[in-house]
Amino acid sequence: MKGLKEQILESVRQDLVEIEAALTENLKPYLPLVSHVAKYILFSGGKRIRPLLMVLSARLCGYNGDYDKTMSVVFEYLHAATLLHDDLVDGADVRRGNPAAHSIWGNPATVLVGDFLLARSIAIAAETDSVPIIDILAHTTAQMSEGEIHQLLHRGDLALDETAYIEVISRKTACLIQAACQIGALLAEAPEEEVQSLADYGYHVGIAFQMADDLLDYTADATVLGKAIGADLREGKLTLPVIYALNCASIEDRRRLETIIQAIGISRSDFQTVLGLINKYGGIQYTRDRAQEHIEQAKKCLHIFSVSKQRTLLEQLADYVMVRKM
Amino acid sequence: MKGLKEQILESVRQDLVEIEAALTENLKPYLPLVSHVAKYILFSGGKRIRPLLMVLSARLCGYNGDYDKTMSVVFEYLHAATLLHDDLVDGADVRRGNPAAHSIWGNPATVLVGDFLLARSIAIAAETDSVPIIDILAHTTAQMSEGEIHQLLHRGDLALDETAYIEVISRKTACLIQAACQIGALLAEAPEEEVQSLADYGYHVGIAFQMADDLLDYTADATVLGKAIGADLREGKLTLPVIYALNCASIEDRRRLETIIQAIGISRSDFQTVLGLINKYGGIQYTRDRAQEHIEQAKKCLHIFSVSKQRTLLEQLADYVMVRKM
Repeated sequence: MKGLKEQILESVRQDLVEIEAALTENLKPYLPLVSHVAKYILFSGGKRIRPLLMVLSARLCGYNGDYDKTMSVVFEYLHAATLLHDDLVDGADVRRGNPAAHSIWGNPATVLVGDFLLARSIAIAAETDSVPIIDILAHTTAQMSEGEIHQLLHRGDLALDETAYIEVISRKTACLIQAACQIGALLAEAPEEEVQSLADYGYHVGIAFQMADDLLDYTADATVLGKAIGADLREGKLTLPVIYALNCASIEDRRRLETIIQAIGISRSDFQTVLGLINKYGGIQYTRDRAQEHIEQAKKCLHIFSVSKQRTLLEQLADYVMVRKM
Repeated sequence: MKGLKEQILESVRQDLVEIEAALTENLKPYLPLVSHVAKYILFSGGKRIRPLLMVLSARLCGYNGDYDKTMSVVFEYLHAATLLHDDLVDGADVRRGNPAAHSIWGNPATVLVGDFLLARSIAIAAETDSVPIIDILAHTTAQMSEGEIHQLLHRGDLALDETAYIEVISRKTACLIQAACQIGALLAEAPEEEVQSLADYGYHVGIAFQMADDLLDYTADATVLGKAIGADLREGKLTLPVIYALNCASIEDRRRLETIIQAIGISRSDFQTVLGLINKYGGIQYTRDRAQEHIEQAKKCLHIFSVSKQRTLLEQLADYVMVRKM
């Protein structure tokens, strides 16, 4: 029996081919360096989940125009722009198993190519002649930068609770995935109820996606993940597994966690201690349960649509969020 | 007799008050840090030339709506975003006599607040419901990032000629000023001929503005300029005065210039040597003449409009470009 990933891939193979082509065609840089840096980040093993969600959302709402693949690259460009800027912000040296762009081309080119990708995204969106689409995109971009700043400000902040965590991941991750689904529906000129349902679907998928990502940082195989596990903890990013553990821990265990989190430099054995305490208090399972709830909510949002190939694919993509290994 | 600056300021005093208010009102950040960094760069002595040009262009074309001041802040936000990113890119520590934002808040916050300002600009533009306006803005933003990258790539490049220099300053400076004037006309729903004339006016003002800026780096009083003179040369930025001198110099003088330009670290006496050679070959005067030509061309673009207070002000603003001291 085929795995979920293989089933999805089989259904969207042609879409993915067209999205890959559109990613190159729409870049239109004037300088070769822009093309090099942008392509380095764009073609480094991204799963194209955002463009795919947009294309499928449009099609679910009956879209049959020819701008969906072009428009879909906007979400990959914006995602790539934030990866370029965020890796620089986080001082992360590795991305998907390769050196981060800023450690090859330096901060200046990385900042500016990120800006170029942001600008290209809006220019492509403007081609739709739809002000609501552009408006959502502009607000999404502003929210993403504020989400990253929020996270930056809370580095190592032991007072960060689950509510604040959800706030951060809503802005830095969920809002772009939400925008992809919502804009897919808008491109199809879907009725408001459908637009809202797909926006909600995207929001819940986005939250689950980030929770799953945060789980991988504690549970993945480093060679599959393409970066060292425990990176979040070393960067002072408190995510739900550890927030939950901190919240449930005995006074003594909480102190042990706090001491490690606030230390400069976290050793392999420190990380194992944290992982042990997270497991002791069920932080992994708790996060998995919350993510699963969001996936169920996401799938429920699709109930207003009649059953179709697209609806099934969107349901499968929601489920895929929890089973991915990188 | 009043100076040109005082005459202009007297005519636009109320506009400037309203632009200042709009700059604060439209920022709408969610986090206080964003507000701090953005306001630090926005309220550090900018002359508001870009918003003013937009407002006056709109009014010249008969605009009498109430969105001009709001829309005008877009050009100051975009300008501020590029200042934040460019100072980081250039490693410049001082801006208008104050520490550069990145040396106070660090690179991460500076990158992200720049992104926020870019995104806010597009969101404000989207409020006009005008796709052409948004489109121009998006393409302008892409061009600006490519202009900066172009400049970055040509650091210390002795082969940079006048044509390539014009290409760089068109993108990094002129296109935003051009967009401000053009969008002013579009906001007023002016006929195409007027839109084009104001775009051309803005382009020529922008080129002259950057040439004047590049001149100041060789001729200004450092205490008035708010930063050390000779900064461009130290950063390896070849501007027209030195490009012209290199082009006209004897073989021996060219070698002296090349040696200094390519050295790591330029002493005060090196700078004086370069300045002496620039003057020997008339690089300052040549640049001033070229800038003056662009100012005349800019003013000629206004001839299709009948004489009015706005037209006179736009002519005065073009002239002001050459007399400013900082």
